[in-house]
Amino acid sequence: MRARPLFNKAAVIGVGLIGGSLAIVLREKGLANKIVGIGRGLRNLKEAKRLGIVDEITQDLAEGVTDADLIVIAVPVLKTKSVVEEALPHIKRGAILTDVGSVKKDVIDAIEPMLPKGVNFVPGHPVAGTENSGAGAAMRGLFKGRRCILTPTKRTGRKALSVIRRLWQEAGSEVVTMDAREHDRVLAAVSHLPHVIAYELVNTVSDAEARGGAFLKYSAGGFKDFTRIASSSPEMWADICSMNRRFIVEMIRRYEKRLKRARGLMDSGDWDSLCRDFAKAKSARDALIKETKR
Amino acid sequence: MRARPLFNKAAVIGVGLIGGSLAIVLREKGLANKIVGIGRGLRNLKEAKRLGIVDEITQDLAEGVTDADLIVIAVPVLKTKSVVEEALPHIKRGAILTDVGSVKKDVIDAIEPMLPKGVNFVPGHPVAGTENSGAGAAMRGLFKGRRCILTPTKRTGRKALSVIRRLWQEAGSEVVTMDAREHDRVLAAVSHLPHVIAYELVNTVSDAEARGGAFLKYSAGGFKDFTRIASSSPEMWADICSMNRRFIVEMIRRYEKRLKRARGLMDSGDWDSLCRDFAKAKSARDALIKETKR
Repeated sequence: MRARPLFNKAAVIGVGLIGGSLAIVLREKGLANKIVGIGRGLRNLKEAKRLGIVDEITQDLAEGVTDADLIVIAVPVLKTKSVVEEALPHIKRGAILTDVGSVKKDVIDAIEPMLPKGVNFVPGHPVAGTENSGAGAAMRGLFKGRRCILTPTKRTGRKALSVIRRLWQEAGSEVVTMDAREHDRVLAAVSHLPHVIAYELVNTVSDAEARGGAFLKYSAGGFKDFTRIASSSPEMWADICSMNRRFIVEMIRRYEKRLKRARGLMDSGDWDSLCRDFAKAKSARDALIKETKR
Repeated sequence: MRARPLFNKAAVIGVGLIGGSLAIVLREKGLANKIVGIGRGLRNLKEAKRLGIVDEITQDLAEGVTDADLIVIAVPVLKTKSVVEEALPHIKRGAILTDVGSVKKDVIDAIEPMLPKGVNFVPGHPVAGTENSGAGAAMRGLFKGRRCILTPTKRTGRKALSVIRRLWQEAGSEVVTMDAREHDRVLAAVSHLPHVIAYELVNTVSDAEARGGAFLKYSAGGFKDFTRIASSSPEMWADICSMNRRFIVEMIRRYEKRLKRARGLMDSGDWDSLCRDFAKAKSARDALIKETKR
């Protein structure tokens, strides 16, 4: 179903998995009359154009954002600040700026002080993704049934917030708003920690293999599923760790304590307690699945 | 394609996910003239009968194994010893006994000393499974394209080994043989450790939630996939931990060291090294997927 265009010109900075998939929403829902893809890599931009994800492409940030009503920043989260800094002089009054970064507090602290009057910033984070990247990985329906977390501040305009809310609703997401700090604390637990865990599990097994023996070839489907997120972009995840360091370090610490406890129960042969711990995890995870089953 | 029956009577002790799925192979490939399901729970046995997984069911172990040419032990691994002990007086000379346990050295040490002359034991472990259990979870093709590891000892008869190898080949598995100790070391890394990790990740997030805040509802698909194995049977995994304690504890220790290193890199802001560690994991995991892609 096509809606009335929310925007005349939409600019997507970074036409990768997230930016590209959102551009697809803008196009398919008829939310923008023109969609411009902005990026550094010409090959990726050309791919985005070829796939029909965007109408126009440019490597010139200033040109790309000029006259845009909506500017979506979908670059690696650590680059958000410099990209916005470079773009701001060319962004028109009344435009809405939004981002999709996995860390919110740092991004807000970097961007809000720079904002001129009349440019609205709505911090956002679609909780969706795959381990793939680039325009070629963009897909229809990536955000469908997912949550999109918006973390407005007291400076966020009410109208801009409602427009961005509408954008994500059109993408099929359930939009929730949350305090930025709370967002970062929650995501450290349910997303950032699991990525660190997965990377280091693969490294642990690789290390064991390096000491002799074939390990990875004997891994069952479980291991492959379990470590899927270890195929995510290392640069992106190192960036996220740097920007959400405090909460991630805290979660790793807590996690290490749980592992130490499990190891201690094994050392002392307390299988009943170990089984109870496992059962507690199973029931929490089963409840989660039940709750989110569509 | 139906093969010539390898067995007149096959007895499957424990008609759950693995035992049941193997019974389906025996039937569909015509490998046994009669398949008897043996178990404690009458409801599960009746379900197995109703689903056509087995021809006959009994709660009487002695009766079930009498005259069987093949006896598959598919009970929780910690119960293997007592089940075999109880069954042995009723097992005929020339019969082949095999198991499907996730731990091999302990099982072999428990069983081999009890074996009378003429009863052949072939220790096995199909590296397959889901987080579900019971006869209702049994399925066609569960072992297809999976590895089945046989860990023969110097007492394992050559003919019995080749029959069991054939059985798993008929199931569609790639059969490899391996030393039992090596099996336990490898599986501790690629299967047992990941289960402990998944259980304790869910517990870590639940603990955080208990301290205030909604965490689990904001988890994306990644978290759900990642923690799938945390829905596995707590009893089964506590048993596996107890039987393969030494290697699992060692792997947890090594894993804790990797986590501590990652945390240290974050604490000191060494993002380049962190990124290199993540990249190393990504390339190992990508190579694994490439290698096993069918």
